[in-house]
Amino acid sequence: MSDVQWMREALRVANSGTGATYPNPCVGAVVVKRGRVLGKARSDVTGGAHAEVRALAMAGRAAKGATLYVTLEPCNHRGRTPPCVDAILGAGVARVVVAIEDPAPHVAGAGLRRLQDHGVTVELGLLAERAREVHRHYLHHVARGRPFVTLKCATSIDGCIATASGDSKWITGAPARRSGHRLRAQHHAIAVGAATVLADDPGLDVRLVRGVSPDPVVFDPRLRVASAGRPLQLLRPGVLYLHTERASKRARAALAKAGAEALELPATARGGVDIEAALDRLGDRGVRSLMVEGGGRLLGAFVAARAWQELWMYRAPLVLGEGRPAIAGVGWTSVGDAPRLELLRTRTLGADQLCVYAPL
Amino acid sequence: MSDVQWMREALRVANSGTGATYPNPCVGAVVVKRGRVLGKARSDVTGGAHAEVRALAMAGRAAKGATLYVTLEPCNHRGRTPPCVDAILGAGVARVVVAIEDPAPHVAGAGLRRLQDHGVTVELGLLAERAREVHRHYLHHVARGRPFVTLKCATSIDGCIATASGDSKWITGAPARRSGHRLRAQHHAIAVGAATVLADDPGLDVRLVRGVSPDPVVFDPRLRVASAGRPLQLLRPGVLYLHTERASKRARAALAKAGAEALELPATARGGVDIEAALDRLGDRGVRSLMVEGGGRLLGAFVAARAWQELWMYRAPLVLGEGRPAIAGVGWTSVGDAPRLELLRTRTLGADQLCVYAPL
Repeated sequence: MSDVQWMREALRVANSGTGATYPNPCVGAVVVKRGRVLGKARSDVTGGAHAEVRALAMAGRAAKGATLYVTLEPCNHRGRTPPCVDAILGAGVARVVVAIEDPAPHVAGAGLRRLQDHGVTVELGLLAERAREVHRHYLHHVARGRPFVTLKCATSIDGCIATASGDSKWITGAPARRSGHRLRAQHHAIAVGAATVLADDPGLDVRLVRGVSPDPVVFDPRLRVASAGRPLQLLRPGVLYLHTERASKRARAALAKAGAEALELPATARGGVDIEAALDRLGDRGVRSLMVEGGGRLLGAFVAARAWQELWMYRAPLVLGEGRPAIAGVGWTSVGDAPRLELLRTRTLGADQLCVYAPL
Repeated sequence: MSDVQWMREALRVANSGTGATYPNPCVGAVVVKRGRVLGKARSDVTGGAHAEVRALAMAGRAAKGATLYVTLEPCNHRGRTPPCVDAILGAGVARVVVAIEDPAPHVAGAGLRRLQDHGVTVELGLLAERAREVHRHYLHHVARGRPFVTLKCATSIDGCIATASGDSKWITGAPARRSGHRLRAQHHAIAVGAATVLADDPGLDVRLVRGVSPDPVVFDPRLRVASAGRPLQLLRPGVLYLHTERASKRARAALAKAGAEALELPATARGGVDIEAALDRLGDRGVRSLMVEGGGRLLGAFVAARAWQELWMYRAPLVLGEGRPAIAGVGWTSVGDAPRLELLRTRTLGADQLCVYAPL
């Protein structure tokens, strides 16, 4: 196998990972000597070992003189774990092939330079484009200081996420729902609007596939969820509520009693939570990726703010007619003013179709 | 080349045809001798020669002893043109390979039997499934006495055919619009609702591609178009208006003055033209295929009546939010009650996506 094939394998391993490695990206590493794989790993969940260290541990003493293929520049600093560069040097690796540099200010080439200074052959740039795609959540956060935002919805072919009366069970089939849970597991945080919490009482956890559940965030300008006065799955510690100054003292107290966290943010003219401010604050807190599950009004607010990077639309082959629109609360007078997208890719999931769009 | 390849060629020729051969289907015929094509043709527009006759005319005297590949059983009766079977026998064709029998009562195997009685080798059933697809409009009309109904719409990814204010220019790009005109040319008749006529003043003609324009049909329960008191492209002879008893005398007179034809039909409980009755009457008049272009309410009426065979959805990569829904005036309380479809095929047209659905 060639360098390209080994790097492809490292990227595949990285891409099979979850979002639960924050603040680090999910890196893939493969240790190869004389055409044989001695170790292969992706980053462990938060606080666990990095991909390079795990792959080298698998290789053991055989790693001496081997080549390490890694999807992102190895770190040269002590975070929650010791620097990967030390592990590479300690293992006696002869050559390191890296897809892309880590642009984080405390890395940014320093890891590669230190390897070279110690006589390790370093090659940078193999399958760089694919690596930028695999690590897009992480790179976006490093570059913009905000989470990468993925909008997700499950709709009929005519763009409804529920009937007029609110029924949305089940629009898509089991394979699409599993894919939706896999998407959850790839994100650091997951957001819904208050109306969705009150109507559906979602848990937002990863159940249909293996993976770590993302941190729930509820956009709830007036803290209506806390005022509902009934048990709801998201009224619990670990859930972050984004509200405005219009939230009542009583609601704030009820939320505190439930153990959930509240964050006051500026309001839009229409009384919603300002999306830009929300992303800035989430970014500051280190939230690397945010999946927005709905409902229509929250998705509409992100679309109106043009504050998103990918839209995952699961389309079921059924007609709902005048049901609840996937993107609500926004509209344009002229077609020419409406946001134009690009269809990145499409996939068949059982009877359903997944279309992934990016803003143009 | 083998029999299969020649038949495939005949089917390709048939499929490249238009809907303007009514009451006949658009057949494809290829005359082959010693591996060489001597003639190849599809049916001419209404009143013109059939495919077999045209292909044999191209072959001339060389057709003696040749094989004729034809997508549908040749006719054995005098319609607007003499029977094809006579032409085949007259040309001295040795072998006829036919994809499917013509199920029309006055054909139904009689053509094939007469060829066999005269010593011609007849083979039936090659690529029959594909032929049933190519001739689906015709076969549906023969079997059901009603036009094959194709619903068509151009929508945003979230299922809107216009902004809330009614702007719909241009949701899809040029390749999708050309495909839409090609679809028009494949149909015998084309229908719109009165609101669409009043809002957009469409011509419904085939302009962006070569082809014959289908016969316009306007669903206009109260003959509002005739009452508009302004010149509109569809207020002209050759246009059929379907209305109910609620159309005023004045409107009926205005329509007659414009030279358009009016047909009174039963009304639904909500005051619309009864779709079932409309299809029965159009079928009786020999309308073999009907393309329904919109607007949303007319498409919704066909969906609610479950009176359609294909839905061609051209989806542009843009978001319209709370615009006008593609399928309007209908809704279901539960997702389980909503009509389920099957995605037959999907195609990329420039930046747009065409998805063709059938009812499940």
